[in-house]
Amino acid sequence: MFIERHSVGQVKPRRFVFGSQEDPLVLDSGRALGPVELVYETYGTPNQDHTNAILICHALSGDAHAAGIHDPHDKRVGWWDNMIGPGKAFDTERYWVISANVIGGCKGSTGPNSTNPATGKPYGSDFPLITIGDMVAAQKRLVDHLGIERLFCVVGGSMGGFQALEWSLRYPENVHSVICIAAGAQLSTQGIAFNAVGRHAITTDPDWQDGHYYDTAGPVRGLASARMVAHITYLSEISLNNKFGRRLQSADRLSYDIHHEFAVESYLNHQGTRFTERFDANSYIYITKAMDYFDIARTYGPLKEAFAEATARFLVVSYSSDWLFPTAQSKEIVRALIATDRDVSFVDIDSPHGHDAFLIDIDQLTRVTSAFLDGSQRSQPIARRSSAG
Amino acid sequence: MFIERHSVGQVKPRRFVFGSQEDPLVLDSGRALGPVELVYETYGTPNQDHTNAILICHALSGDAHAAGIHDPHDKRVGWWDNMIGPGKAFDTERYWVISANVIGGCKGSTGPNSTNPATGKPYGSDFPLITIGDMVAAQKRLVDHLGIERLFCVVGGSMGGFQALEWSLRYPENVHSVICIAAGAQLSTQGIAFNAVGRHAITTDPDWQDGHYYDTAGPVRGLASARMVAHITYLSEISLNNKFGRRLQSADRLSYDIHHEFAVESYLNHQGTRFTERFDANSYIYITKAMDYFDIARTYGPLKEAFAEATARFLVVSYSSDWLFPTAQSKEIVRALIATDRDVSFVDIDSPHGHDAFLIDIDQLTRVTSAFLDGSQRSQPIARRSSAG
Repeated sequence: MFIERHSVGQVKPRRFVFGSQEDPLVLDSGRALGPVELVYETYGTPNQDHTNAILICHALSGDAHAAGIHDPHDKRVGWWDNMIGPGKAFDTERYWVISANVIGGCKGSTGPNSTNPATGKPYGSDFPLITIGDMVAAQKRLVDHLGIERLFCVVGGSMGGFQALEWSLRYPENVHSVICIAAGAQLSTQGIAFNAVGRHAITTDPDWQDGHYYDTAGPVRGLASARMVAHITYLSEISLNNKFGRRLQSADRLSYDIHHEFAVESYLNHQGTRFTERFDANSYIYITKAMDYFDIARTYGPLKEAFAEATARFLVVSYSSDWLFPTAQSKEIVRALIATDRDVSFVDIDSPHGHDAFLIDIDQLTRVTSAFLDGSQRSQPIARRSSAG
Repeated sequence: MFIERHSVGQVKPRRFVFGSQEDPLVLDSGRALGPVELVYETYGTPNQDHTNAILICHALSGDAHAAGIHDPHDKRVGWWDNMIGPGKAFDTERYWVISANVIGGCKGSTGPNSTNPATGKPYGSDFPLITIGDMVAAQKRLVDHLGIERLFCVVGGSMGGFQALEWSLRYPENVHSVICIAAGAQLSTQGIAFNAVGRHAITTDPDWQDGHYYDTAGPVRGLASARMVAHITYLSEISLNNKFGRRLQSADRLSYDIHHEFAVESYLNHQGTRFTERFDANSYIYITKAMDYFDIARTYGPLKEAFAEATARFLVVSYSSDWLFPTAQSKEIVRALIATDRDVSFVDIDSPHGHDAFLIDIDQLTRVTSAFLDGSQRSQPIARRSSAG
């Protein structure tokens, strides 16, 4: 099957503000947040009744910029550009694709680096703890604002998969279909453990200053360590081995240097440092905490009972070498959905690329996604022509 | 089979000094180290011709104190007390068991916290980088000093397994048998990567002070982070899940606290902090570097050719849930030994305890070890009575 893959071209981030003092976003913790700003992008065009909307949910370090470029000189396209565009998995000639930065993030949406209206200074660690449910509640306000009564599909990988599942349970009437990729019904103990190490590295960095560091460079060393350990969990043993093996960084002979010797060390250090240039340490803390808290059974009861409330069609995708969210975790969701007689498809994609595979190995993902969306159209037809078309 | 398990009782650490300025230990890096002090303990008694000696090699954070207690008030026994003693796997009624702290360590043997004779101050990061081969070369001096021509067995788990393998290749004439547990013929890329993160956390801690911190508390925050990430790699996903799951630390309800929430977080923090009370950060750097460097193929050529030089009998043991040194790495050793027609036994022990299993799941390990040592006696009989007996 030949799929022509074009780009969505140049896109412009938009802003949506809600949650005044009188009508704030009430968080799962009970605390109120407002005003709330969401940065989002859209690709494709809405049809007349806005039934062709697909909401893209990003992972820990993602942002609203999922496809296309921001200006003609951009060298990098959005983080899921290989999946979003004309003729691609999320075909912008048929669907109206929406992508928003999560709250708690640092890419434009309200987060710990935003101004606290109570003090006129950045929130820092005064920002309230948020949950995946809170992220989704904020997205719901955006979706309402855009005049979408029912999303044709909510899709995400990793923490994006958490959001997609949350949508199906928190707002079952407003979701026609869900694609949950490389995720699970909860974060595993090991996942919490790795997050805890990352947060330990950040919060024990003296430059963290209890989270109020915004007039300085911030805890860049701790954040780099956190990113390095997380980065290892995104790759498979085999992909690390194929990519670097035990190759030395700079020569054929061992240098017996106390710092770098192997290529994989330099690579990780580079990844860690680069990350600190584009991500806020407090956001890292808040978003990993939100991931820790994600646990469908705690919020909605045992999985089978929880999913009995869902009405969406589901596509669940895992990757064979993903050890952060192993296939077994996807199967747990699938079993619960089957037990409660939901409409569910499941694919375990064979890949050497570990957890990051959903960003890399998109050929088979494109095929199963396209087929699933076609199937979803049969149960809820949408107009092929956009309202603007 | 009933095995009576007694203790070796009270033991006294001993010291052995070698490597004067005129006869230093020449390291694999080409640098010289001297004088070198080794702290060691022995359990059981030598037979007349010293043919019943078993050398125990410890892992990253281990020490010479492998069995028994140091004084009657000791609440903790040595780290492998469940394996060493009268009637145990390493039966001190038959064998003369020797355990020494590695060079580079911080438990009495010469390492970065030892006094640099050139300055009269601790070496710090002026200590030369060492390899597993260097550790073994130092042990060889001790073994010579003890009047042992041929070790009946060299045994170790994890980095101890590296040392056991190294003995078989560096000093093939001096080793009758080798037990390599939860190790491999090299440290994997992922293993290097996790070590690199730990070292990054230590060396970017401002209290590391380029390795010269011995008049202060040192980089305890970085070392704690390093230990936390390593600790995760020692446990299996399933054992973490069984032990902690998603249990909260202090209550049934979520506290929405930016610091600890889940039991596994508190556990890891506690492990990290406790480790800083008993281990030196520079030793952590030097020993993980030594592990990184371990690569039989680089030092001795392709495995099949390398092991063709070995004359020992081998027992290779892996644990099913060990993901730091997966079973496949043990099998790689076994395949090379079989290909070159060596005498090798291999057991993959089914265990949920991950890499740490060799310290915990010792029932089956005891059985296979005892059988292997009995078999080794058939090919090299040792006197049953000790010279002291």
